[in-house]
Amino acid sequence: MKNVALFGAGRIGRIHASNLAALPGVKLKYVSDPMEGPARELAQQLGAEVASVEAIFADKSVDAVAICSSTTTHSDLILRAAAAGKNIFCEKPVDLSVQRAKACADAVKAAGVACMIGFQRRFDPTFNEASRRLAAGEIGKPEMLVITSRDPGAPPVDYIKASGGVFRDMLIHDFDVFRWILCADGDEAAWISATGSVLTEPALEGLDFDSAAVTIRTRRGRICQIGASRRAAYGYDQRFEVLGSEGLLQCANQTPTNVVQWNGSGIHTDKPEHFFLQRYAAAYKLEITHFFDCLQSGQPFRTTVADGVAAQMLADAATESARTGQPVAF
Amino acid sequence: MKNVALFGAGRIGRIHASNLAALPGVKLKYVSDPMEGPARELAQQLGAEVASVEAIFADKSVDAVAICSSTTTHSDLILRAAAAGKNIFCEKPVDLSVQRAKACADAVKAAGVACMIGFQRRFDPTFNEASRRLAAGEIGKPEMLVITSRDPGAPPVDYIKASGGVFRDMLIHDFDVFRWILCADGDEAAWISATGSVLTEPALEGLDFDSAAVTIRTRRGRICQIGASRRAAYGYDQRFEVLGSEGLLQCANQTPTNVVQWNGSGIHTDKPEHFFLQRYAAAYKLEITHFFDCLQSGQPFRTTVADGVAAQMLADAATESARTGQPVAF
Amino acid sequence: MKNVALFGAGRIGRIHASNLAALPGVKLKYVSDPMEGPARELAQQLGAEVASVEAIFADKSVDAVAICSSTTTHSDLILRAAAAGKNIFCEKPVDLSVQRAKACADAVKAAGVACMIGFQRRFDPTFNEASRRLAAGEIGKPEMLVITSRDPGAPPVDYIKASGGVFRDMLIHDFDVFRWILCADGDEAAWISATGSVLTEPALEGLDFDSAAVTIRTRRGRICQIGASRRAAYGYDQRFEVLGSEGLLQCANQTPTNVVQWNGSGIHTDKPEHFFLQRYAAAYKLEITHFFDCLQSGQPFRTTVADGVAAQMLADAATESARTGQPVAF
Amino acid sequence: MKNVALFGAGRIGRIHASNLAALPGVKLKYVSDPMEGPARELAQQLGAEVASVEAIFADKSVDAVAICSSTTTHSDLILRAAAAGKNIFCEKPVDLSVQRAKACADAVKAAGVACMIGFQRRFDPTFNEASRRLAAGEIGKPEMLVITSRDPGAPPVDYIKASGGVFRDMLIHDFDVFRWILCADGDEAAWISATGSVLTEPALEGLDFDSAAVTIRTRRGRICQIGASRRAAYGYDQRFEVLGSEGLLQCANQTPTNVVQWNGSGIHTDKPEHFFLQRYAAAYKLEITHFFDCLQSGQPFRTTVADGVAAQMLADAATESARTGQPVAF
Repeated sequence: MKNVALFGAGRIGRIHASNLAALPGVKLKYVSDPMEGPARELAQQLGAEVASVEAIFADKSVDAVAICSSTTTHSDLILRAAAAGKNIFCEKPVDLSVQRAKACADAVKAAGVACMIGFQRRFDPTFNEASRRLAAGEIGKPEMLVITSRDPGAPPVDYIKASGGVFRDMLIHDFDVFRWILCADGDEAAWISATGSVLTEPALEGLDFDSAAVTIRTRRGRICQIGASRRAAYGYDQRFEVLGSEGLLQCANQTPTNVVQWNGSGIHTDKPEHFFLQRYAAAYKLEITHFFDCLQSGQPFRTTVADGVAAQMLADAATESARTGQPVAF
Repeated sequence: MKNVALFGAGRIGRIHASNLAALPGVKLKYVSDPMEGPARELAQQLGAEVASVEAIFADKSVDAVAICSSTTTHSDLILRAAAAGKNIFCEKPVDLSVQRAKACADAVKAAGVACMIGFQRRFDPTFNEASRRLAAGEIGKPEMLVITSRDPGAPPVDYIKASGGVFRDMLIHDFDVFRWILCADGDEAAWISATGSVLTEPALEGLDFDSAAVTIRTRRGRICQIGASRRAAYGYDQRFEVLGSEGLLQCANQTPTNVVQWNGSGIHTDKPEHFFLQRYAAAYKLEITHFFDCLQSGQPFRTTVADGVAAQMLADAATESARTGQPVAF
Repeated sequence: MKNVALFGAGRIGRIHASNLAALPGVKLKYVSDPMEGPARELAQQLGAEVASVEAIFADKSVDAVAICSSTTTHSDLILRAAAAGKNIFCEKPVDLSVQRAKACADAVKAAGVACMIGFQRRFDPTFNEASRRLAAGEIGKPEMLVITSRDPGAPPVDYIKASGGVFRDMLIHDFDVFRWILCADGDEAAWISATGSVLTEPALEGLDFDSAAVTIRTRRGRICQIGASRRAAYGYDQRFEVLGSEGLLQCANQTPTNVVQWNGSGIHTDKPEHFFLQRYAAAYKLEITHFFDCLQSGQPFRTTVADGVAAQMLADAATESARTGQPVAF
Repeated sequence: MKNVALFGAGRIGRIHASNLAALPGVKLKYVSDPMEGPARELAQQLGAEVASVEAIFADKSVDAVAICSSTTTHSDLILRAAAAGKNIFCEKPVDLSVQRAKACADAVKAAGVACMIGFQRRFDPTFNEASRRLAAGEIGKPEMLVITSRDPGAPPVDYIKASGGVFRDMLIHDFDVFRWILCADGDEAAWISATGSVLTEPALEGLDFDSAAVTIRTRRGRICQIGASRRAAYGYDQRFEVLGSEGLLQCANQTPTNVVQWNGSGIHTDKPEHFFLQRYAAAYKLEITHFFDCLQSGQPFRTTVADGVAAQMLADAATESARTGQPVAF
């Protein structure tokens, strides 16, 4: 039985908590959150105890920690967990600073603990199947990747101010998808160009972008295009398509139902799942299962702290490119 | 906390057991099965005890039973559960004999216990949403219903011999869908015509049909067409479409993923989910949740023993019609 | 150069006239219609002359006639054309009376002229490709066929009164599709059951049906289901799907464009093409081309007068079955 | 009756010739081509005469010319046609040199003749309907446009060498689509960044790109992404989607038929139409009809020589950006 402590009893923390609590051989022992109310409620619901950060790291019986607290606490908790010899599951991002993210990677390595970063898209059944079939050679060698990444609506301006900007907060997932899909054989980003606009959230003017486009060229000449928006009127739009030498693999959105209505104004189907909690519900379960399966088997994680650092570097470069209007070469 | 006893530790029993065991406020107390091995294994896995039928009905702490044993045992267990004052969840069918099914309905009524029949299609998210939108008037009044019901492959001949035939074993679900969709406002079947053939399973010649077509006309003149096959090369095909005065509602199949492959030979998407365990995984969860929610709230079930009897009567009439080549009027 | 005379300057006559006038090697010489105005207008537009029936049959230079006049004139014109040694293209049906249709078939045979019946569905690119792929063995042997046949709205009651009823007027096409798809290898209808209702056109009560369902079983046990309605709120719905031992071939509707709109209420695509003139525009061209190609090459037509007779016999049987509530065996 | 002379009896010339010859009120009088054989064959087939360039411009009865000859001849023929007072339909591009293209625009204006450039995508029924619905406000204001432009295979290297490169030869259409869709209200490109690779045609190394990505930002901050490839294994892929403040309009590919096959390996539909002659068959007809309709009515063309110049400027900028790795600002 693996004892686990959870940091962060917010939205994503609750998802991971209930998923891991349902796994055989895993026990959610502690919940920790600066806000006592949510921590107590979640702990009670899942038969865990509320504990302080210190108490958790001091408890030798804790095998692993799940870091689902706010972004600014990630790197500190990773460093302390590594020092305490705990295995780590950490929500993206490692840290908004590439330097601190790298320090985390170093610490994890030095401590010899396992550290997985929660890039849940890699566990989405549709995305994952596309990746598997690409790796199996179904469309030959990959050439171009087009990622569509649109949210149903922007978060509050205060959140955005602290988020590191759209490339670090939102496109970080897409940078990881780029690396997963186009760079699986050792290829790497060589050139990145990004641009952004304020089209949907006037309050962001001068602060950030709500609409963004990124192009990445790899060393082998493969090309990735990412188009992103903080607000799509029809909801959460998460697609990608990869063109290969022998065909195309395309990932369509997931819908709540398969009902089709035909009437005088046309033929109508469901919008995509509302937002990430719905779209990635299966992915969150598969992701945390993967974490504990790997701890058990000793197999490497599919998404490591190095992946977190690499995605962060792309986000930094995109941020700079969009600011200056000039591409960045690696 | 509701204590529940499960009869039948086979494929469908295991599904219901693990779903109900995960519900808050529900405890799987007993598992009973003529085969000791599967009963023990399932009980152990879910923290329940193995018990005899007698012991279960004698235990006053048992609130409800889930009857997932073989079809031939259903009516006997319903009668005994009613006599013992237990609430009942029973897999379809009530009984292959309409007479015995009616006796069950009478006994349940007399005993004042609740009895739900497991017509899982009514809980499928797609089918259920279509029903909801039909009831909400989205396509006006219903006129015609077309149901497609194809299995990936036929069960063993021995199973078929004891099954009551394709109309009672397989189309029983479709007869319930007909009643659910076309008769929700009190309409009823007035005329039924069925025909069948042996096209895919030569061993069934003279015993049963593997391919069947049914037409039902209701008192108000609505028309339902059901087409069924024991074997579709592409898997499990479960669709229906209902034409209304203002449009059509169509339920498409569900697929494992939304990956689309484009290559020199065309554009390719997933087959439907393999079979009922996959296609109706969500439905099984929602169905058993509904059972306990209704026990808790006192609300009526969506599928009662009367629905079970009514579907059985249609199956009987279809069987006779296909045998004689003549329609049956009600 | 083949000289052609057209009987009937109505809607369908004008379609065939302009299609055949555009064919190389074909000259529309005469147009004949009881209504002088439309005849003159059409003749003028296409460089033809208006002529009487008598004059047309007397002109030795006329190679072929296209009979697009009202249904009641078909058999008489066929007989006269055969007597005059003209090759014949005739719109469906041959005649509302099977007996008279057979007489036409006999006369055509005796005269040694070629006679093609205009079952345009066999020339629809989608339907035709499905037929070709079925014949090529792509889904093994055919087992079941489901045809959906819905019109956007009913014709005037006066038209319907003279039409022979829904089975002879509307489903005649679907009976031909049944024979084309399920009986291509010599199989034949053995049993037919039909039922109908008045659900959309109250004025038809006692006269005809607006909603109908037909089931046909062939000698080899194959099963065909046809569902038809005179009025679908979303337009013209023309689909079929054939289940074979190794898969399914499905013909979807055709739409005016491939625009997809996504918004807050769902994802929206075009309705099917409005009605037969739009949906079968390509088919009408291919059909008349086929007629003249066969005249040129001496190859047999894809749809002969015998096909017209056979479809008419099914329509008669369906009409009787729906009237009596009893199936008809052949 | 408008008399028309055609320059160029190649593939695209033959398309336009047969389309315009079928228009009422239009007569194809002359065909001119440096290769006598094709000119003669085409002229004969359509009842026209072969003539020299000089003779055509000298004939006062010629109202309009259709320039479908090789790209290098376009600007010269436009200048001569303008000087001779002929109305002009010219295939894209105006000229590979923006300077010469502008000279053509000036000459056309000075001569007071009408000049339409053949950007056929604007006449594609699907694209055109999307444009119409965007203009009608169906998805609010446009924000982002994503264009997919993939050919089934690259032309010969010799063609490519003379083509001006992938941006001028192939993406010229996509630059026009960008202007049509995102700039209809007077917006304009402000910033463009392009990159390219040689991934599918090794012989192009150092000469041109076969894979390219372009990002354009407009003055109002709208963003367009274009992804292009000279070779897609599945054929000709011509899609775009435009995100607006209230939804998305998406243009899917067109397929030869609507047959769907289901079997053990999945569900299969047609590939897109093979290449531009098939995909844009309807567009070519509508385009040339538009040309003569406008000549008749005096209405302005939908695609003018100014549009040709503007697209050429974007192609030039993209070419430079891809060469230098730096964006170009306007």
